[in-house]
Amino acid sequence: MTQMDVARLNSFLEEAFPQVAPDFTVRAVTEDGVEVVLLPREAHLRPGGTVSGPTLFALADVAVYLAILARIGPVALAVTTNASIDFLRKPEAATDLVAQARLLKLGKRLAVGDVLIVPEQGGPPLARASLTYSIPPKTA
Amino acid sequence: MTQMDVARLNSFLEEAFPQVAPDFTVRAVTEDGVEVVLLPREAHLRPGGTVSGPTLFALADVAVYLAILARIGPVALAVTTNASIDFLRKPEAATDLVAQARLLKLGKRLAVGDVLIVPEQGGPPLARASLTYSIPPKTA
Amino acid sequence: MTQMDVARLNSFLEEAFPQVAPDFTVRAVTEDGVEVVLLPREAHLRPGGTVSGPTLFALADVAVYLAILARIGPVALAVTTNASIDFLRKPEAATDLVAQARLLKLGKRLAVGDVLIVPEQGGPPLARASLTYSIPPKTA
Amino acid sequence: MTQMDVARLNSFLEEAFPQVAPDFTVRAVTEDGVEVVLLPREAHLRPGGTVSGPTLFALADVAVYLAILARIGPVALAVTTNASIDFLRKPEAATDLVAQARLLKLGKRLAVGDVLIVPEQGGPPLARASLTYSIPPKTA
Repeated sequence: MTQMDVARLNSFLEEAFPQVAPDFTVRAVTEDGVEVVLLPREAHLRPGGTVSGPTLFALADVAVYLAILARIGPVALAVTTNASIDFLRKPEAATDLVAQARLLKLGKRLAVGDVLIVPEQGGPPLARASLTYSIPPKTA
Repeated sequence: MTQMDVARLNSFLEEAFPQVAPDFTVRAVTEDGVEVVLLPREAHLRPGGTVSGPTLFALADVAVYLAILARIGPVALAVTTNASIDFLRKPEAATDLVAQARLLKLGKRLAVGDVLIVPEQGGPPLARASLTYSIPPKTA
Repeated sequence: MTQMDVARLNSFLEEAFPQVAPDFTVRAVTEDGVEVVLLPREAHLRPGGTVSGPTLFALADVAVYLAILARIGPVALAVTTNASIDFLRKPEAATDLVAQARLLKLGKRLAVGDVLIVPEQGGPPLARASLTYSIPPKTA
Repeated sequence: MTQMDVARLNSFLEEAFPQVAPDFTVRAVTEDGVEVVLLPREAHLRPGGTVSGPTLFALADVAVYLAILARIGPVALAVTTNASIDFLRKPEAATDLVAQARLLKLGKRLAVGDVLIVPEQGGPPLARASLTYSIPPKTA
């Protein structure tokens, strides 16, 4: 059962993370995950116009974070403990990117999710990531 | 397009890897992946009767390997260069395990796949893994 | 401060994990880690006589586990939650392998260590791994 | 043998990556690695003043990249194919961060390095990462 819908997740992002909120928009919440769109800015790009690795990492990270919050409510204190990411193909310059995140485990202490990052217009995945979050005791 | 079907993958496994072939059975091949079943033996178990971490790793590893071979044919020389695995839940003692592997990238030099390991009788995933294989130049 | 020395770690291994204990020998314990030697058996080998990936994984896994126990005492219940491994070079056939593990974090709930696997006779590393263990509440 | 020293690596960073160069300074080059200092800006911080996960990722990524360039010369085309990172402790707000990167493998097609991120003033590591880069054929 989800605790937060698309509108609440976007509001939370704006309040808790004003520095990065303009980059990301949640556009779907399902039973086991979320979809987050990256709105690239100049600072995200590398020579050739492709989105940088750290930006893809940030997109994957926020997507799993929001997938957790969708289930347990607006708890700002979950922290990433581990991440693994495979960069599969270079994103094209003018492409919006979509992170499709799903929760694989939501335990009392740890949550694990994985993410595929795909071009908005379709096609093979650009990156794959998996992330572990530690959930603080009081929220368990 | 696949180059090897279920029967050919199982034959290849027996010929090329006789030491581990009895542990694994390919049971499905699709356009983008394979399903491999682990047949646990005493040596795979840990105290409490659960399947060991290295055995789950071996299952994920062989599943992505076979997903690559299904697409490029019986090339024994692809080697794992990187693997990342999340252990999500303890497998129950008497449970058959199924690895659902899909190829995310099949390039000339690198192939990347991910895997969910689930109990045969259904239920939440027990482990998640992603693996990169280096493909030798002559087979590219 | 360490709680277990080389002799006690080897005894623990034999009692708690009789199935794998013959494969591994702890040979050094320091303030921040351990050294574990793999004694390869036929079952660990692949075509060409090299040690298999899952065997290297098992070696890295047990080395970090023992590095944790060396510090917190003989607690059999810590479980691996995440592992990442890079296979750098093929081990030569007749080479003993040494895992050099060090603890990077020993928290109440999570411990993280990394490992270099090197040939006994010296030379560049064969594999690198990092592992996270979840430590059960009662032992914290 | 290194091909680029501290001054040349810093110049390369400014020319090839003007958007991120102000954040990073190379301060040491050795036979097997480099040290890179992060100069945090407002955009790198999260609530509480700690440096964000994606910023730590970017620091680890650039450090291994520069460790490779130090050895093979100013080749702008190596690309990250895989990264794994463990976040061990929260960085304190006003702390400069140092990435200590070492190359574990420098092959014709793949290079692998790992990184410890530590506070400038000393103390236990804040993060650990390992990264794989694909090296384009013409530079091999």
